Amino acid sequence: MSTILRYMDIDKFFNAESVAIVGVSKNPNKIGHVIFRNLLDGEYKGQVFIVNPNAQSILGYFSYKSVLDIEHGIDLVVIAVPAKYVIKVLNDCGKKKVKHVIIVSAGFKEINNNKLEKNLLQTIKKNKLNVIGPNCLGVLNTENKLDTLFLPRYRLNRPKQGEISFVCQSGAVGSSILDLASKEGYGFSKFVSYGNASDVDETDLIEYLGKDPSTRVICVYVEGISDGQKFMEVAKEVTKKKPIIIIKGGLTDEGNKATLSHTGSLAGNAEIYSAAFKQCNIIQAESLEEMFNSARLLENSIRPKNNRVQVITNGGGYGIICTDAIIKNKLRMAELNKDSKRLLKKHLPPIAIIGNPTDLLGDATTERYGVTIEAALKDRNIDIILLVVLYQTPLLNTDIIDVITEFKSMQKKPIIVVSMGGEFTQILKESLQNSGVPCFTYPENAVKSIKRLVDYYL
Amino acid sequence: MSTILRYMDIDKFFNAESVAIVGVSKNPNKIGHVIFRNLLDGEYKGQVFIVNPNAQSILGYFSYKSVLDIEHGIDLVVIAVPAKYVIKVLNDCGKKKVKHVIIVSAGFKEINNNKLEKNLLQTIKKNKLNVIGPNCLGVLNTENKLDTLFLPRYRLNRPKQGEISFVCQSGAVGSSILDLASKEGYGFSKFVSYGNASDVDETDLIEYLGKDPSTRVICVYVEGISDGQKFMEVAKEVTKKKPIIIIKGGLTDEGNKATLSHTGSLAGNAEIYSAAFKQCNIIQAESLEEMFNSARLLENSIRPKNNRVQVITNGGGYGIICTDAIIKNKLRMAELNKDSKRLLKKHLPPIAIIGNPTDLLGDATTERYGVTIEAALKDRNIDIILLVVLYQTPLLNTDIIDVITEFKSMQKKPIIVVSMGGEFTQILKESLQNSGVPCFTYPENAVKSIKRLVDYYL
Repeated sequence: MSTILRYMDIDKFFNAESVAIVGVSKNPNKIGHVIFRNLLDGEYKGQVFIVNPNAQSILGYFSYKSVLDIEHGIDLVVIAVPAKYVIKVLNDCGKKKVKHVIIVSAGFKEINNNKLEKNLLQTIKKNKLNVIGPNCLGVLNTENKLDTLFLPRYRLNRPKQGEISFVCQSGAVGSSILDLASKEGYGFSKFVSYGNASDVDETDLIEYLGKDPSTRVICVYVEGISDGQKFMEVAKEVTKKKPIIIIKGGLTDEGNKATLSHTGSLAGNAEIYSAAFKQCNIIQAESLEEMFNSARLLENSIRPKNNRVQVITNGGGYGIICTDAIIKNKLRMAELNKDSKRLLKKHLPPIAIIGNPTDLLGDATTERYGVTIEAALKDRNIDIILLVVLYQTPLLNTDIIDVITEFKSMQKKPIIVVSMGGEFTQILKESLQNSGVPCFTYPENAVKSIKRLVDYYL
Repeated sequence: MSTILRYMDIDKFFNAESVAIVGVSKNPNKIGHVIFRNLLDGEYKGQVFIVNPNAQSILGYFSYKSVLDIEHGIDLVVIAVPAKYVIKVLNDCGKKKVKHVIIVSAGFKEINNNKLEKNLLQTIKKNKLNVIGPNCLGVLNTENKLDTLFLPRYRLNRPKQGEISFVCQSGAVGSSILDLASKEGYGFSKFVSYGNASDVDETDLIEYLGKDPSTRVICVYVEGISDGQKFMEVAKEVTKKKPIIIIKGGLTDEGNKATLSHTGSLAGNAEIYSAAFKQCNIIQAESLEEMFNSARLLENSIRPKNNRVQVITNGGGYGIICTDAIIKNKLRMAELNKDSKRLLKKHLPPIAIIGNPTDLLGDATTERYGVTIEAALKDRNIDIILLVVLYQTPLLNTDIIDVITEFKSMQKKPIIVVSMGGEFTQILKESLQNSGVPCFTYPENAVKSIKRLVDYYL
């Protein structure tokens, strides 16, 4: 199957204009019902049909006996019936000329139901279907609000629209990250939990997102990769255009064993995976936290020219912590050139420490930051600007946000902000983040993400 | 000076019943004024006096010309006048028989003002003073609300009362962490920012906190240690009773250089420090985040018998991530004994995965958690229980909080919870945390903290 055809085939999973949900119970706690409700309650503008042979109507919607009875064409069928009924529904989908199916239902190879798995694969092939799942949550597209996640919104908030997309083999990991993102204020473009990957796999999805104009960064949590060669070929192409950040579950022997009972994946050797990822310029994250810290930075940063970081701070201790972290992460401390030093000596008070870190001191004002950032943007010895801004000091006013946002919007050098603090700090950080300035609570996390940025681009 | 005497000498810094602030301006933005306001607005029950020779009264308080004019005895003097006036105030303190002084003012050895530094040391000695600072924030005691931090509460929230104490050479690092703690909901007992450590140093403070019954865990951010031998002697004794978690700023050559202009410390060689910390059973954290994650766990956990961790989850992917993290951190995966397996087979649905991790599946109920935790508490193959609880699934009700809290209160084995999520999750996590159950957002951070717990005790 050619690359272009495959791309066409995936798109409807995220951009279906009509969806049929098979297995919508009247019981509001059942999976099919939750999916239906989420589509109704969200802002999804496409047509929604429901299939339940035992109901007349649910929430005012006519309930069809089968997808075959739906008069309208259907872009996407979501199956939420027990495993044993899935084959029948897939055959109906084939007859109805449906091309895209998400099987939410569990009970296939992940519980060693190999006979049913074999039957599933044959049925998919026979009916020329593109199938995500089984044993998955399906998709969320924050743009058109297509949302097949069977978790109610009051428990699982959906994140705002952004440019990170997330391909996640584990529904639990994926959905809880989306929920966290909603709280932490970062956005997603497309999310897909693809479960057992019996048909559409991680590589198909990565390939699609590589070409998706709404996706700037691709995050991947994967337990097994079925076709390593295909994966590497695709990843090499995609990372030329946008970063892929991956966590490979089951890297240790013990973790590997656990993947078998989870998604029926064969996880394989840690070193082989790491070497392969490196060869493809894939960023391998050490933790979920690091994955999304790096993703937020890569989403919002321009390409740095080199790896020389200038630290500007109003707290001396943070200058030292950042310096240690920069060296530990094998980045370089920039050295201010003569012009910068002259300029800063002229404009900063004599007690300020001009160097790297440049310490604007506890009584730093927005003006001090302004003149120092401006000098750093001009200074050809500096590639990346790391600002520590502690809002606890009374002399620092909210106009610091305007200043940083303006400098960031010039898109000359990556600017990253570290602000540790509580509620007051949070309000200011959110303003900055909403303007696309990447903000971090912990200096060490900021520097590690800068390392990822540099490694991806250089 | 004997250990016991030194202990007596430090106590009044945290438990002063009368405080005089020297240098309280009428200008509400000035440091002395902010300290005064914070003492008034808080719930500090001791007496407060203010000294400003140029004012009659400030905020209704009589303003003394000098500490010598105060009729009352004074436990603690806080000096917030420009550096050049500090010596005069110290001499007044000596005459007044004041024993404890915090010098907030900057402008001594950290800016190479060596003459003034020498004069400072002589004056302290001559007047037999115990001095914290200069160039510091001083202290916060959450118990009696004694608070010399010159940062207004609306910008810097004070954390609730807890059993972590924090000795911090950098005022910026310390205060912003307190502020963060107020938002993240963990508590502190005592905080001290000691700046240049011209007199009282990190070791004196650690020794005091080692004996302080309100302190269970001591966190330390230090740039330089002046007397390594004394530090090690004290630390070895203290860590027999409670954990010390340290971050040493200036571990790299570049960071080392930066410490000189910050607190005038000579930072020294990374390997030497690390070896010394290890020898004293001090936990050396790699980041601020790790320091306080570990501190929260050590504050709330009993001693584990060994390092065998049982993972119980309702999300398969988290089981795998935890397993990988456990092995990477050189902990061991527990192996359920026969009794546990028999019991769980009887009580869990056949599709649940009984092992390590034990996967209670997406439709896990509180009952499933209950029976599994109970088995794990009984099972002698298990030392530590790591619970992943994802609250996004509709079948998991809030009674899970009661169950976990009850098992935790039995104090049989360390129980640690991982819950990734947004607002709904946050509410449940806060309930658990308020009951002393350590909760983490990221599984990798939880496991790293467990490693610290094990390393400290075993």
